[in-house]
Amino acid sequence: MSRKLHLALHPYGVGGPGQHGLWKDPRVAKDASIDIGYYLRQAEAAEHALFDALFIVDSQFINATYPPHYLNRLEPLTLLSAVAVRTRHLGLVGTASSTYNSPFNLARRFASLDHISGGRAGWNVVTSFDTGTARNYGLDEHLDYTTRYGRALESVEVIRGLWDSYEDDAFPADPERGLFLDPDKLHALEHRGEHFKVAGPLNLSRSPQGQPVIFQAGVSEEGRDLAARVAEGIYAPGGSLAQAQEYYADIKRRTAAHGRDPEHIKIFINGGPVVAATDEAARLREREIFEEDNDLERSLALLGRSFGAYDFTGHDLDAPFPDIAHLAEKGGRTAAGKIIERARTENLTLRQVVTSASEFRRSPFVGAPATVAETIEKWFAAGTFDGINLAFRTFEELDLFVDGVVPLLQERGLFRTEYEADTLRGNLGLPVPENRHTAARRAAQG
Amino acid sequence: MSRKLHLALHPYGVGGPGQHGLWKDPRVAKDASIDIGYYLRQAEAAEHALFDALFIVDSQFINATYPPHYLNRLEPLTLLSAVAVRTRHLGLVGTASSTYNSPFNLARRFASLDHISGGRAGWNVVTSFDTGTARNYGLDEHLDYTTRYGRALESVEVIRGLWDSYEDDAFPADPERGLFLDPDKLHALEHRGEHFKVAGPLNLSRSPQGQPVIFQAGVSEEGRDLAARVAEGIYAPGGSLAQAQEYYADIKRRTAAHGRDPEHIKIFINGGPVVAATDEAARLREREIFEEDNDLERSLALLGRSFGAYDFTGHDLDAPFPDIAHLAEKGGRTAAGKIIERARTENLTLRQVVTSASEFRRSPFVGAPATVAETIEKWFAAGTFDGINLAFRTFEELDLFVDGVVPLLQERGLFRTEYEADTLRGNLGLPVPENRHTAARRAAQG
Ligand SMILES: Cc1cc2nc3c(=O)[nH]c(=O)nc-3n(C[C@H](O)[C@H](O)[C@H](O)COP(=O)(O)O)c2cc1C
Ligand SMILES: Cc1cc2nc3c(=O)[nH]c(=O)nc-3n(C[C@H](O)[C@H](O)[C@H](O)COP(=O)(O)O)c2cc1C
Repeated sequence: MSRKLHLALHPYGVGGPGQHGLWKDPRVAKDASIDIGYYLRQAEAAEHALFDALFIVDSQFINATYPPHYLNRLEPLTLLSAVAVRTRHLGLVGTASSTYNSPFNLARRFASLDHISGGRAGWNVVTSFDTGTARNYGLDEHLDYTTRYGRALESVEVIRGLWDSYEDDAFPADPERGLFLDPDKLHALEHRGEHFKVAGPLNLSRSPQGQPVIFQAGVSEEGRDLAARVAEGIYAPGGSLAQAQEYYADIKRRTAAHGRDPEHIKIFINGGPVVAATDEAARLREREIFEEDNDLERSLALLGRSFGAYDFTGHDLDAPFPDIAHLAEKGGRTAAGKIIERARTENLTLRQVVTSASEFRRSPFVGAPATVAETIEKWFAAGTFDGINLAFRTFEELDLFVDGVVPLLQERGLFRTEYEADTLRGNLGLPVPENRHTAARRAAQG
Repeated sequence: MSRKLHLALHPYGVGGPGQHGLWKDPRVAKDASIDIGYYLRQAEAAEHALFDALFIVDSQFINATYPPHYLNRLEPLTLLSAVAVRTRHLGLVGTASSTYNSPFNLARRFASLDHISGGRAGWNVVTSFDTGTARNYGLDEHLDYTTRYGRALESVEVIRGLWDSYEDDAFPADPERGLFLDPDKLHALEHRGEHFKVAGPLNLSRSPQGQPVIFQAGVSEEGRDLAARVAEGIYAPGGSLAQAQEYYADIKRRTAAHGRDPEHIKIFINGGPVVAATDEAARLREREIFEEDNDLERSLALLGRSFGAYDFTGHDLDAPFPDIAHLAEKGGRTAAGKIIERARTENLTLRQVVTSASEFRRSPFVGAPATVAETIEKWFAAGTFDGINLAFRTFEELDLFVDGVVPLLQERGLFRTEYEADTLRGNLGLPVPENRHTAARRAAQG
């Protein structure tokens, strides 16, 4: 097979959606999610296993009844910068909200990470799932879909413009001519758009990748459109094989429709997995995890996330799913809409909805190493993803995947046996974008 | 002497105010200011020499005629996070503007650095010297003094409130009771002030220092007032011995007037130095540096900084200093005001002003190691500073200070012979602030 599989590691810390009970596991440090040593150890293992990237999700909202993984977490860019100087090949993808950040600030921080890591930075653009974030940034209400996705697209455009402030040869640093900077190679942006006014230039030269890699996560019509226009990677939710196929084909088609090469957008799905010595042991472990994680209270809190941190505790669990459609618009219209529609057509109670939502999050990759490798190949060949975003509950389970599954993926010719490059772009097979001003000059000169 | 001297290292990269010509030095890498290796090497040397901290200044504005050190620089928090995992005792002080950042964003990033470094983070609060920053953040004009310093004070208050979101014992993580978080120990802020509305809580637990250390840099009436109210460290400009004494006494007096212990604000001055084998060699080296750095074009650009990046190139150098008092208000009223007043009373030309401004930036610490140690002791004993913020042009000069001057300071009983602590607070002799909610509960319980 000539298409290559990509693997990313998504370290949760303790807890997290689908990992609520993890802090109870005696093998896991209670403060893992704020212990840089925990992330460094995962990063080193991921690099040893030739993974493409470490992938850090983010949220900027909590309250006391929220899923525990959001209670206590390091900020992604400081986290990844620490990882940068302890690794050499691993990509470093950090999530940051375009809704609650200034483009100039984000442009600097990601470009700085790209310099520090020698060309391994990626930005996962999100519009902020957690509606309560608004109140930490001076707003009473989460911005609506159109505004959030409008800001997202304009942010990416502005930030890419800032990343091109300096042409590659802007600093001759030539003592003979007394010339440190060639001023013709420095370009202000003077952007004035619907959401942002940013003059530029950025005070940081082009980074080793030309520009950090743009990822995106968000599945609505607006989210897919954003991805097709500007993303080079996607963090996609997965779901059933058929759902993943539909999503994959849709994104590749949309990307091509924007005149882009569909090979230049890599779709990663959320992948679990649960690996054990035998299929039977893995299924048992899966059941154990499922029970550990899905106590009702936490599952309700997680369900509430799609409805603007809605608190379900006042509702009768065995009555029909409550009429809260008006709360879906702000946070996650797509996820919330699906829940409401299913509840209505199948006439489900709140308890049934919350249970099936937990089921939806189960990984397709459960079994002995050989079974998992085979399932991955089957899904990969079926056009469901370009990569998997893997998360492990313990270091033991990470090691089992690395030592058990990765060699089988390599034998099948699916996964690399050495890094192709020192940059994230290089390993993902993405082109280095030419500086726009250099390109324009070249074009003008014929 | 019982008062202890503190030393910080302020790595410039190439160029910088008073170091314009540094890129021409064959011993200095042309891309030093964006090479994390350059900073790591300085940090490791500073830690080896038992320095208190690495101090990173910042700016978010450039144009082609600006002092070169601002042309190309890493973002301070990503830089310091990388340094954090390569050092163990060194404090990590990063500059960030309260004018062009959201408090929630800054609170997270500094708290995250404090976790990653095990309690070594400091925030140098600035109101942004470079007026052009406004246009990178959607504004046409730099905010005025009152607004900038009003935001600075309110930012610090909000951020400290966010840093206290969790009490120290908020996470019992007790499987017996099924209790990860104790919800009574998590506190929303619900701040509504003149400049900011921030709900909180922060999604990051109290950091190893309780709170990162607050530094401040800015010398106007408003700047001094801010320092006296909230700062635990100051980056002060220095100047003559008499000027430094006046400033030192003034700050300590103001701090006491706010009911604070004046020992709990540590004043660092900008300290050069120029060290060589003999006094004569050091003076020669100083002259060489002075000539290398102070070509007229660059000195004019630097002078223009105090007047909102004003471009002096159209003015006759030998005519009286131009009437540009109206440009002083926005950028640096204090610095600009002094320049204008001196130009008027002494009837100076533009050339005379630019030359004397360069002279002002000369270090008092020039000579052989014994001379420098003696001068430091004299200034220290005269009540001019608690610490020095040192910058070196080359690694050779850094080594000469570390191997030549530091042992003499130790012999004189001025400087530590081992780290007192693993945290920046510990080494600076600053108390750990008690969580406000814990304190309130204790007070209520009598
Ligand atoms: C797989 C996946 C991962 C996501 N990760 C994050 C995240 O880490 N932080 C965040 O604020 N939002 C995250 N989002 C949320 C999106 O940015 C978006 O706000 C949300 O999905 C609602 O928009 P949509 O209807 O377009 O999906 C994620 C979404 C998906 C599908
Ligand atoms: C020693 C010193 C260092 C400073 N460092 C910075 C800096 O790194 N970045 C910045 O934007 N401003 C810096 N400032 C500027 C101040 O934040 C402030 O904007 C400026 O000095 C004007 O205010 P003032 O009149 O109160 O001094 C510094 C000021 C001083 C005196």
